[in-house]
Amino acid sequence: MRTRPLKVALLGCGVVGSEVARIMTTHADDLAARIGAPVELAGVAVRRPSKVREGIDPGLITTDATALVKRGDIDVVIEVIGGIEPARSLITAAFEHGASVVSANKALLAEDGATLYAAAEEHGKDLYFEAAVAGAIPLIRPLRESLAGDKVNRVLGIVNGTTNFILDKMDSSGAGYSEALDEATALGYAEADPTADVEGFDAAAKAAILAGIAFHTRVRLDDVYREGLTEVTASDIASARRMGCTVKLLAICERASDGKSVTARVHPAMIPLSHPLASVREAYNAVFVEAEAAGQLMFYGPGAGGSPTASAVLGDLVAVCRNKLAESTGPGESAYTQLPVSPMGDVVTRYHISLDVADKPGVLAQVATVFAEHGVSIDTVRQQGRQDGSGEASLVVVTHRAPDAALSGTVEALRKLDTVRGVASIMRVEGE
Amino acid sequence: MRTRPLKVALLGCGVVGSEVARIMTTHADDLAARIGAPVELAGVAVRRPSKVREGIDPGLITTDATALVKRGDIDVVIEVIGGIEPARSLITAAFEHGASVVSANKALLAEDGATLYAAAEEHGKDLYFEAAVAGAIPLIRPLRESLAGDKVNRVLGIVNGTTNFILDKMDSSGAGYSEALDEATALGYAEADPTADVEGFDAAAKAAILAGIAFHTRVRLDDVYREGLTEVTASDIASARRMGCTVKLLAICERASDGKSVTARVHPAMIPLSHPLASVREAYNAVFVEAEAAGQLMFYGPGAGGSPTASAVLGDLVAVCRNKLAESTGPGESAYTQLPVSPMGDVVTRYHISLDVADKPGVLAQVATVFAEHGVSIDTVRQQGRQDGSGEASLVVVTHRAPDAALSGTVEALRKLDTVRGVASIMRVEGE
Repeated sequence: MRTRPLKVALLGCGVVGSEVARIMTTHADDLAARIGAPVELAGVAVRRPSKVREGIDPGLITTDATALVKRGDIDVVIEVIGGIEPARSLITAAFEHGASVVSANKALLAEDGATLYAAAEEHGKDLYFEAAVAGAIPLIRPLRESLAGDKVNRVLGIVNGTTNFILDKMDSSGAGYSEALDEATALGYAEADPTADVEGFDAAAKAAILAGIAFHTRVRLDDVYREGLTEVTASDIASARRMGCTVKLLAICERASDGKSVTARVHPAMIPLSHPLASVREAYNAVFVEAEAAGQLMFYGPGAGGSPTASAVLGDLVAVCRNKLAESTGPGESAYTQLPVSPMGDVVTRYHISLDVADKPGVLAQVATVFAEHGVSIDTVRQQGRQDGSGEASLVVVTHRAPDAALSGTVEALRKLDTVRGVASIMRVEGE
Repeated sequence: MRTRPLKVALLGCGVVGSEVARIMTTHADDLAARIGAPVELAGVAVRRPSKVREGIDPGLITTDATALVKRGDIDVVIEVIGGIEPARSLITAAFEHGASVVSANKALLAEDGATLYAAAEEHGKDLYFEAAVAGAIPLIRPLRESLAGDKVNRVLGIVNGTTNFILDKMDSSGAGYSEALDEATALGYAEADPTADVEGFDAAAKAAILAGIAFHTRVRLDDVYREGLTEVTASDIASARRMGCTVKLLAICERASDGKSVTARVHPAMIPLSHPLASVREAYNAVFVEAEAAGQLMFYGPGAGGSPTASAVLGDLVAVCRNKLAESTGPGESAYTQLPVSPMGDVVTRYHISLDVADKPGVLAQVATVFAEHGVSIDTVRQQGRQDGSGEASLVVVTHRAPDAALSGTVEALRKLDTVRGVASIMRVEGE
């Protein structure tokens, strides 16, 4: 074994960074044996240097992250600060100054992964980011490497623990969205500002990363259709139950059936209770991958948290260090297919639509005609009088598979019918 | 991209080999793009050269596998013939003559992986074998690489599709073992001679491979405790149901709580219906991995079959070819912990024991005394008179966690009691 240690700079020492530093210390011998050389924490860049950080030599702490990545003697930079800047500048500076990079930064990779990949390639360095998607669950490496000889057609998963916790609470307790969010916040599953999670931005960034790797093309955050779960009501969940379904916030990346384009989207969807994703509870993540030869694979585990994310970071650290010793690099960007990303209107799926309609004869015929005119075939209809004297009824329509654009056109036309008082909810149905 | 192709020799052209050859042809452009060079099938060694093999140039077919691996111009040998010999000699010859090896041979890796690893290392070549365990499910790479920065404490899984199919049938239809085996055979899930599957040899080989990689130590097939499912009865399955459990044939690899030894075993076990492995149906495989930082991960998918296994082989082919072009190698054997493998008697788990006893007062007290004398603590007891005039009752005891040796001692002593007419079944209880 080489005795001269590999030097690691850690950018960020919050929940994930402090756990990375801790494990690097407590498991130093194991890491050295697996890498073939010891690894040494050579510097830790933080915002608040005065904070006490147990187990970390205070002499390693600096607020000057830029100077740290430019030192020139750093072998690997671990970036766990998140966000676009200064992370992007620090990562590119790291490559320029001879370091490989392990990052957990989903937002940056989804926003501008191409720049990072290009900088890594230009300088012959590694860019690894298993921790960016689904925490400890090995997903990037299986997609980039294990399935490198296969053709992935679909990735479908729960990639945000906060929203899964909220939906699971709504489903199990009948709580409304606000109440479930409050519980998630109280238990530390949701941040004080939950926007990135509940509006689907976090999941969309992960969908962009997964789609890019799965389909060997470039997919950016802007290419991902996104709907959060703030509009999901207790009534939607109850409706799903009546259909033998539950509601999950899904990230879905698909290759078009003609193979000439791909789509990536994040939105709440009903899935059958018999689907393995339906039983993913609390803040867990799970991702289905459908490949031509492999068939359906599922990967399940904790999608966030300091320790699980640190596990993924350290797995990448070992790989990058091994590569360094072998004077090689792992797989870089694979975007050779250059498949275009189609808009949401081209996505083909099923829909569950709840309408408030006038409770009188002929309404169903009118509604059915609108669906037919837009080429959307109806699977089932459930009609129910309100018996509250309002003269209204509710009509629940579940369609066969149809393009999203056709469904949008249908809904627009339905809204213009005198007999349709309102469109209570529209939800996609997946996983069949 | 390099234009000179990498040359691949295929040993074996059965269900898996023919699918590997087919995909290498139909997806040649994708493989070339992902590797960075074209790959060319340079020879196919078979036993029956006269068999028509669609899509394979007859000029590539040979019966002389030894000459093929010794040609000297082969970059990668894919071994899908299985068994110990001639596979071992062919693989070592391949390394000696400059080729890296991708193998799906679980029996050989479990029997004598050390020899193969050593030969690969001596000649600076790669030995990859994702396909040897759980077909298309990425498991070897996640354990060897993704979790390389973590400490794996437990691997628990369903790694044999045939036996899972049989147990699933017994559970869902109430069928006995023979009837379920017949159905598995008729549907092609079981081979004409099902011994390797139903006696647990196949699962034990996989357990040896998984334990070795997970714990960074050397575990051989002989180190794995093994019980098949031929003794599992419809009555065991019914008993499991009454406890809210189902029966699965599990491969279980554990690090001892003091960290100083490991165990590996394969046997039928009851697991709670709420455990994710309980819902693994038909011939699917699923493996739980528990690691210190990552927590509980699960990997699920088709565990066998031509296409899924070919997917795993081709993923390895891409990795090995990339390494070849980078003039590096992937991770080799990691056995630095040199942990001893403890015997089955040291394993600590729970037990479900069915006894036929005399239906008279005091029997339960006698039985309970025997458990207490052996230090096995009882969790629950269910006593039921037969009401068939036999004067017998059945007594079902579920224990707390106890060493397997203590349980064996208990059972031996129970058999000596006059009031115990027979020990109807003993089954371990896992997954809690």
